[in-house]
Amino acid sequence: MRMYDVIKKKRDGAELTTEEIRFVVHGYTRGEIPDYQMAAFLMAVYFKGMNERETYDLTIAMLESGDRLDLRSLKGIKLDKHSSGGVGDKITFVVLPIAASFGVKIVKMSGRGLGHTGGTIDKLESIPGMRTSLSKEEFVKIVDEIGFAIASQTENLAPADKKIYALRDATATVENLSLIASSIVSKKLAAGADAMVFDVKVGCGAFMKDFDQAKKLAFLMLDIVRRHGKKAKAVLSNMDQPLGKMVGNSLEVIEAVECLRGEGPKDVIELSFTLVKEMLDLAGLKVSFSDIESMVRSNEPLKRFKKFIELQGGDPNVVDDPFKLPISRNVVEVRSDRDGYVARLDAEAIGRACVFLGGGRSKKEDNIDHSVGIELLKKVSDRVRTGDVLAKVYYSNRSDLDSALALVRSAYVLSTHSVEPPSTVFEVIE
Amino acid sequence: MRMYDVIKKKRDGAELTTEEIRFVVHGYTRGEIPDYQMAAFLMAVYFKGMNERETYDLTIAMLESGDRLDLRSLKGIKLDKHSSGGVGDKITFVVLPIAASFGVKIVKMSGRGLGHTGGTIDKLESIPGMRTSLSKEEFVKIVDEIGFAIASQTENLAPADKKIYALRDATATVENLSLIASSIVSKKLAAGADAMVFDVKVGCGAFMKDFDQAKKLAFLMLDIVRRHGKKAKAVLSNMDQPLGKMVGNSLEVIEAVECLRGEGPKDVIELSFTLVKEMLDLAGLKVSFSDIESMVRSNEPLKRFKKFIELQGGDPNVVDDPFKLPISRNVVEVRSDRDGYVARLDAEAIGRACVFLGGGRSKKEDNIDHSVGIELLKKVSDRVRTGDVLAKVYYSNRSDLDSALALVRSAYVLSTHSVEPPSTVFEVIE
Repeated sequence: MRMYDVIKKKRDGAELTTEEIRFVVHGYTRGEIPDYQMAAFLMAVYFKGMNERETYDLTIAMLESGDRLDLRSLKGIKLDKHSSGGVGDKITFVVLPIAASFGVKIVKMSGRGLGHTGGTIDKLESIPGMRTSLSKEEFVKIVDEIGFAIASQTENLAPADKKIYALRDATATVENLSLIASSIVSKKLAAGADAMVFDVKVGCGAFMKDFDQAKKLAFLMLDIVRRHGKKAKAVLSNMDQPLGKMVGNSLEVIEAVECLRGEGPKDVIELSFTLVKEMLDLAGLKVSFSDIESMVRSNEPLKRFKKFIELQGGDPNVVDDPFKLPISRNVVEVRSDRDGYVARLDAEAIGRACVFLGGGRSKKEDNIDHSVGIELLKKVSDRVRTGDVLAKVYYSNRSDLDSALALVRSAYVLSTHSVEPPSTVFEVIE
Repeated sequence: MRMYDVIKKKRDGAELTTEEIRFVVHGYTRGEIPDYQMAAFLMAVYFKGMNERETYDLTIAMLESGDRLDLRSLKGIKLDKHSSGGVGDKITFVVLPIAASFGVKIVKMSGRGLGHTGGTIDKLESIPGMRTSLSKEEFVKIVDEIGFAIASQTENLAPADKKIYALRDATATVENLSLIASSIVSKKLAAGADAMVFDVKVGCGAFMKDFDQAKKLAFLMLDIVRRHGKKAKAVLSNMDQPLGKMVGNSLEVIEAVECLRGEGPKDVIELSFTLVKEMLDLAGLKVSFSDIESMVRSNEPLKRFKKFIELQGGDPNVVDDPFKLPISRNVVEVRSDRDGYVARLDAEAIGRACVFLGGGRSKKEDNIDHSVGIELLKKVSDRVRTGDVLAKVYYSNRSDLDSALALVRSAYVLSTHSVEPPSTVFEVIE
């Protein structure tokens, strides 16, 4: 088999065989196929697409390229959750302790953030002492004890995806549903869960800007997981404005704790409860929102979160005393210069402002400043009067501040008419 | 400017600016843009195309990447001829001496053959002693004396094209009109002529299989040359069957000499005369076919060809005594096993048979055996009786023979009904 022929076949719009797809993925991962042929292939896929069967084969070939977590020692169904990435997305910290309190097991591997969306691992690491690099034994032990654990992705989880993703990122071939779906699902399948819920974000701050495309992606991911004999659901959720009020690593941990106390913002609660409900459903447990509320009021989820921090080496006192988290004391308020209603609050601009402050990465090598971030006091549909504080910006370096402030200001669009509050959850896809 | 953005822009179907195209070509030639980004870019161009302005800019950027022959010391209009590559294409050896006999100057740079089509330089080198690597001074001196010279392309003529072509060849991005046109024209413009005729071959043995595509390519090349302030015409000619009766390096030189004696096959004569007429027209000389015939009868073209061989170091006696050329004495005849008419004579199969014999290259590094080749005694529309010799195969090694013979046999398709003789010249495009 020659790579040239496979490129040409896809370029001419033909369906590739399982063998051809494995040849491409394994050959590329092993360095036998050069970057330039792979780049041409990916661009051909961008234009000609892949059908569901090809997408499944691509996913499995990437899955086969590396290690697979063997979690058979954990009893019962193992659940997982994936977010396609958003601004202010601290949902994992709310969902996992609550779902675990119902008795299910959640095994979560997470990545670091890049670009305007933050990473779960970065947020966790704002807790002093917290370790996210866990051995398999340790990971299994923690899940066994409290029902969940969160570890950073091991190096050798779907290495084909890692190599292919880096190439796509440099060659403008990221935006293709088959390539996106296979990238996400290959890692999730490698992480060893039996059932998973995909939180697919849609909106100006999300990777998927378009509702129909997001829905297609969701269906494609569910198809792959089911072909592989596992269970999945997807939730389409709004990412036009950031989730909750807090954006930034330490700040988001604080907000997650508030939610676990039953006090968090409505949108974070709604999305978290939806994901808990759907995850439990995959495990065969039917619960209502009021069941979930009762569970939160029981304080069990908060206790588990505290225990989770402790077991992964962090300081559990951050739960009771947020000031144990690194939070900058340098705060600037952004005030409104007019009366009106918040019509838009651009999630991407807020995410980028956070990167400017040092709270996110624009390059992989960048260090994260956990203490910075943005507190959004006004969100879409809120009434605003001249002089009201729209947002507070927590910064470390004066030099980064101006760009960040300009972005935060530009993120807010006010209207003179009242504005309907936006939906948080658009649709649950089975 | 970032290559990523240029790839994305073309991927999304937008028109690139002159600056962006220069950035891509010069960045890639200098090694600042990696192969993988260029490969993705080329595949995006394959799918989204380039308009005439972009194609012109691409050509000029490639032209600028290397040396340009400065031929101002040669007086008068400098003509050039390009063939898109065919089987049995010895036309250059017939056209140049005839046109030069009318007093014009032709400056010809040629390449070596790769794949099933032979190269003019390889054919020339079958003449003992012939040198094709000429200094500029020598080249100009020969053109000044006899009106033409043929030199092999210097290394640094449009090096961008060389590098880009190699990448296209490995990434299935050759077949795009803008990329083809810019590749051909950049080298022609660098070679310094003021006016040029493109012989665009169409048919199963040509690079362009489809008439409409070939015509589009011709118009595109003429557009580029004219935007650059030079003159050009194109001739669309038939490459379903090989040109003439001889295929192979020495054999083609022999047939060219026959034509210069006024004795060659009708198709070679017709195409050569058409190209001479159109070249002279570009130089402001109107001549008829009978003017050209008279010129050939005057023996002046043959004399010039002999002088040309002498001036480039070759043995001019090959003109009078073909056996001074290396011609294999090992000959096998391919005979017909039935009565009928030749309905098809697949040029590509004959070209590939010649490569099998060692008369062409399948890889750039291959050496050429000038003594081998195929003599086609029957061509399309010829009547054939059982036992008639269809072709003679001149070979050096028995080991290569069987594959070559099988190809020659498969190249002939006989019909029981009589067949119309095919056209040689389809169209002249101004």
